[in-house]
Amino acid sequence: MALDLRDYVASIQDFPEKGVTFRDISPLMGDGEAYHQATDEIIKFARDKGVEMIVGPEARGFIVGCPVAYALGVGFAPARKKGKLPRETVKATYDLEYGESALYLQKDAIKPGQKVLVTDDLLATGGTIAATIRLVEQLGGIVVGTAFLIELKDLNGREKIKDYDMLRLMEY
Amino acid sequence: MALDLRDYVASIQDFPEKGVTFRDISPLMGDGEAYHQATDEIIKFARDKGVEMIVGPEARGFIVGCPVAYALGVGFAPARKKGKLPRETVKATYDLEYGESALYLQKDAIKPGQKVLVTDDLLATGGTIAATIRLVEQLGGIVVGTAFLIELKDLNGREKIKDYDMLRLMEY
Repeated sequence: MALDLRDYVASIQDFPEKGVTFRDISPLMGDGEAYHQATDEIIKFARDKGVEMIVGPEARGFIVGCPVAYALGVGFAPARKKGKLPRETVKATYDLEYGESALYLQKDAIKPGQKVLVTDDLLATGGTIAATIRLVEQLGGIVVGTAFLIELKDLNGREKIKDYDMLRLMEY
Repeated sequence: MALDLRDYVASIQDFPEKGVTFRDISPLMGDGEAYHQATDEIIKFARDKGVEMIVGPEARGFIVGCPVAYALGVGFAPARKKGKLPRETVKATYDLEYGESALYLQKDAIKPGQKVLVTDDLLATGGTIAATIRLVEQLGGIVVGTAFLIELKDLNGREKIKDYDMLRLMEY
């Protein structure tokens, strides 16, 4: 019988700052059965879409995306913050509450026309994931879907990525 | 026929600073066949040791360890830098060229007696991986092995972790 994955999410009040409830997926990733079940759902979604490459923003996007890449026999490319990637990169910025931040992807990470799945643990405001999608598209990749363990509905990140098919395993 | 994984490592002179040759495993991770082959070797090593949990330091340790965790049906716990992990953590410090840094692991990440594999992309001076091992042991875990894609032999990180069985797929 399938596990209820919500039993493997820890909710922490006032982290990282007052008024915010942090949804911590560590218990899910730390439990072999729960991690396997969650990953299998994403693998099915990715396989149905003919995914040829996975891209995830650092760092929890790696934990979600890498086993999917392995299971499908496709590659994984990390979208990283400034200074982390050697060689030529493309860049996409996104807004933070104060100021902005940027993500980078190596220029040879994606082949033009490649079908890409973008993964992260959590869809919040959608800024990170929208930037990751833009990186893939700058390189000529085709984003065929996005996959998350959790969607935080009140933050309406879904609106920013509404042009893409989305899988999310839980919502809060 | 098996691929030669060294064909999937990019060597970058003078990155991140002058005099250093950076070994970039992005081409390996970005190639489905190479990533799968490398991961399969680590899975075999881990299975032979009866591994029950994988721990990797951020962030490339996730890319190496997460598909192994998935394939074995065990959990993955990230060892992370300051401020990244909610809830109670343990801490281990390690020396940098100038000053020191620290890694953290959530207190409930490991059950006492659990057999743990520690993964990272690259063994350099061994500081990060030795700190990760200490975190696991603080929580009562038993480190049954370490696994790396690459060992940089001249830096002699092997000496710091000589009490543990080690798998490394390539050396430079």
